[in-house]
Amino acid sequence: MSFADRLDAAVEASGSLLCVGLDPDGFDNPAEAEQFCVRVLDATLQHVCAVKANLAFFEQFGSAGYAILERLRARVPAVRILILDGKRGDIGNTAEAYARALFDVLGADAVTVNPLMGHDAVAPFLARPERGAFLVTRSSNPGAADLFDTTIAEHATVYSRIVELGLEWDPGGAAGFVVGTTEPSVVAWVRRTAPEAPLLLPGVGAQGGALEEAVRAALNSRGGRILVAISRAIADAPEGPDVAAAAFRDRIAAVREVAASA
Amino acid sequence: MSFADRLDAAVEASGSLLCVGLDPDGFDNPAEAEQFCVRVLDATLQHVCAVKANLAFFEQFGSAGYAILERLRARVPAVRILILDGKRGDIGNTAEAYARALFDVLGADAVTVNPLMGHDAVAPFLARPERGAFLVTRSSNPGAADLFDTTIAEHATVYSRIVELGLEWDPGGAAGFVVGTTEPSVVAWVRRTAPEAPLLLPGVGAQGGALEEAVRAALNSRGGRILVAISRAIADAPEGPDVAAAAFRDRIAAVREVAASA
Repeated sequence: MSFADRLDAAVEASGSLLCVGLDPDGFDNPAEAEQFCVRVLDATLQHVCAVKANLAFFEQFGSAGYAILERLRARVPAVRILILDGKRGDIGNTAEAYARALFDVLGADAVTVNPLMGHDAVAPFLARPERGAFLVTRSSNPGAADLFDTTIAEHATVYSRIVELGLEWDPGGAAGFVVGTTEPSVVAWVRRTAPEAPLLLPGVGAQGGALEEAVRAALNSRGGRILVAISRAIADAPEGPDVAAAAFRDRIAAVREVAASA
Repeated sequence: MSFADRLDAAVEASGSLLCVGLDPDGFDNPAEAEQFCVRVLDATLQHVCAVKANLAFFEQFGSAGYAILERLRARVPAVRILILDGKRGDIGNTAEAYARALFDVLGADAVTVNPLMGHDAVAPFLARPERGAFLVTRSSNPGAADLFDTTIAEHATVYSRIVELGLEWDPGGAAGFVVGTTEPSVVAWVRRTAPEAPLLLPGVGAQGGALEEAVRAALNSRGGRILVAISRAIADAPEGPDVAAAAFRDRIAAVREVAASA
């Protein structure tokens, strides 16, 4: 079973294309950070098919933050997807160590990977059956324009080259792409180029990405293979994370229904 | 005092341009990994001006590996440079958290940064007085050709664009560049383009980079501003890390002397 198939199964089981992000920022100590994670998880698990932990916000508490990550795996049911978002990328033997750390020690189902250093930096993350790697293709931040959008040939940019390389490197159903919802036209291009690849879509909420437009552009022909990653707009919602997550799930489902009937 | 000035002071104090790398790989448990680090450090500190810890090899032991990193700072004297090599890079608020983790919690003097996500992903690492950030510019691995060497315009590549951007973003003496010794012509180009930037040079030894040629190309006009990073070829040397480190230091010093008299 490939990661792409597992994602389909998680979407089927949860009825959701939403991925809740855990970004424990602004806390004084690791205990508060962990309470935040548990509270957001417990409130949203029924509405999501995946959980994404942003490693930076755990690492800022040192080894105590890392220990929170170690306990997180047990709180995410096997039928959901646990994504560890660290955007790692380094030469071959170092990437092997990162893959062991994230998949074998922390139990990630999928990770985010920075593809800048090329094939041997990405390959170890694509080598485990049932585990996935989302290559950062076009991020949602202002700085994304500095390198991703650089033209490298007629009709080719750094981000388009990343998708080409990712498809070439994919042993089958393991490679996905991170594409910010802030540029729906890029999302549409990635989907046309990679019709079956899982797409991880950040940038909705705090970063101002257009949810409906991006989801419409990202769904594959069977209305799936996407994860809409939302962190602060769920965790910090005035109405509470439970209500906010259910509302995002429903907005995504509405786009999916319209697409299915079109 | 900028990071570049601090590097000059560390080179002056140690009489060395060598940076010993700690890559604790192939150990069964974190205690053995820590013993390895302590043994290599104790044997080589007198011959080096900097110590580089590769985070992946610590993270593969989970929170226990992270705890080794927390204890490492105390073992590296203030007159040496501690580089934490994690090649982090993410959107602004996430990069802020990584900068806190590496500089404030683990006490790094400098870090390696992946610049793919652009300005706001790099800026937090350049914002602390006396701390440095080495932008990955052209790595030493086979996959480096996949993206770094891509042509983006006449006489411009992804790696040349990274140097341009790094110089533009540098508040003054904080930005350095990681350039593999496997391509000395690229090292020479980076030095011509960034005459005073600190250069971190990996790839000697296990990866087959040409030490003398790369050092000659990398030295600035006063014979400094470089760190030659060597890990396995020191730690695993049959003659022992002490002897191996002294020999590498002397080979680098010999190139420096010839350059000074030229």
